[in-house]
Amino acid sequence: MRIGILGTGVVGKTLGTKLVRLGHDVRMGSRKAGSDKAKAWAKEAGSGASEGAFADAAAHGEIIFNCTAGMASLDALRAAGTRNLQGKILIDVSNPLDFSKGMPPSLSVSNTDSLGEQIQKSFPETKVVKTLNTVTAALMVDPSLIPGMHTMFISGNDAQAKDTTVKLLKEGFGWKEVLDLGDLSAARAQEMYLPLWLRLYMKLQTANVNVHVVRG
Amino acid sequence: MRIGILGTGVVGKTLGTKLVRLGHDVRMGSRKAGSDKAKAWAKEAGSGASEGAFADAAAHGEIIFNCTAGMASLDALRAAGTRNLQGKILIDVSNPLDFSKGMPPSLSVSNTDSLGEQIQKSFPETKVVKTLNTVTAALMVDPSLIPGMHTMFISGNDAQAKDTTVKLLKEGFGWKEVLDLGDLSAARAQEMYLPLWLRLYMKLQTANVNVHVVRG
Repeated sequence: MRIGILGTGVVGKTLGTKLVRLGHDVRMGSRKAGSDKAKAWAKEAGSGASEGAFADAAAHGEIIFNCTAGMASLDALRAAGTRNLQGKILIDVSNPLDFSKGMPPSLSVSNTDSLGEQIQKSFPETKVVKTLNTVTAALMVDPSLIPGMHTMFISGNDAQAKDTTVKLLKEGFGWKEVLDLGDLSAARAQEMYLPLWLRLYMKLQTANVNVHVVRG
Repeated sequence: MRIGILGTGVVGKTLGTKLVRLGHDVRMGSRKAGSDKAKAWAKEAGSGASEGAFADAAAHGEIIFNCTAGMASLDALRAAGTRNLQGKILIDVSNPLDFSKGMPPSLSVSNTDSLGEQIQKSFPETKVVKTLNTVTAALMVDPSLIPGMHTMFISGNDAQAKDTTVKLLKEGFGWKEVLDLGDLSAARAQEMYLPLWLRLYMKLQTANVNVHVVRG
């Protein structure tokens, strides 16, 4: 499958490399084509990996991952272009973390709105799926880094787009438990979990931390 | 031990009854002494249970539980009185849920502040401990309603107050895993978990739901 990755940070590189290894044709996009980070990634990831501007990656992908920093995501997606995103699945992995007010970061949008919903509103003909934002990059593509069962959340307005994403999470990345929280307004809950994640990370001194949803 | 319970809802009644059964001397407080709900609870809970105004319950307790609705908590605590709360442990179980904008509720304070911190700021000589707000009332006092391990979070600025509370949670209520998230600013994370809890409740159709924190 042709996949576009927006963002050249750890999340974009980790997802991109895993997807290349799964046999997909992956193009990483950054602000300008030919960025050092994207070129270095494409060289290391090898055959099936390429790079370009945001718009190149979006045009290339049948599925597109938003791996940009949350506060820059809407700008990056505008640069990617409405037409290049139209009708496609956009898997939004980002978190609207605002580091400008010190550590731990706060959220630039929360409570009655979410970044996932803002993206959906800005690109109404794109099928936005929110997932993977609640774990560290390495865990996204290798949930076995934590032994036993633990939970990945997913939300979105398009059932088929969620089905495709769940399949990729389970069969591609190895997630055993993917919990569908409903429509994209659940992105509020997924993003508002981040402050707890940050506390767990600080307390337990490891980024390999997640939760397993349990019930009576 | 003498314990004050502020609030006559399901949370207050459930905690109050459990504490009476554990042998504590529990006084439930409401806006006015002699409320029907508090009197009915005291009668049912039996010996060791009494009721009065918020100030009566606060004056009575060595430990006080805030079980009022989050948006009414600061008013209830003001009615309880600064002097009656001074130097005491206040276990804040409440959530700042705002139901005025429809379902699911939003939070009336979040992100860069929390209800727990607002209470601490309003009553600087009271030892505020935030805990139990992430599970339904029945589960607070009987975590075995969910089989296996699951996690209760706690935060607060006073180490000794947290120790006393952890002991009550473990030895009194049966919690096996209580995770100290640090100082009371972690109440933001605990309260911002509520939107996720509400989604899980809606999705799984049971209030007996919690998370188990797991790590690599």
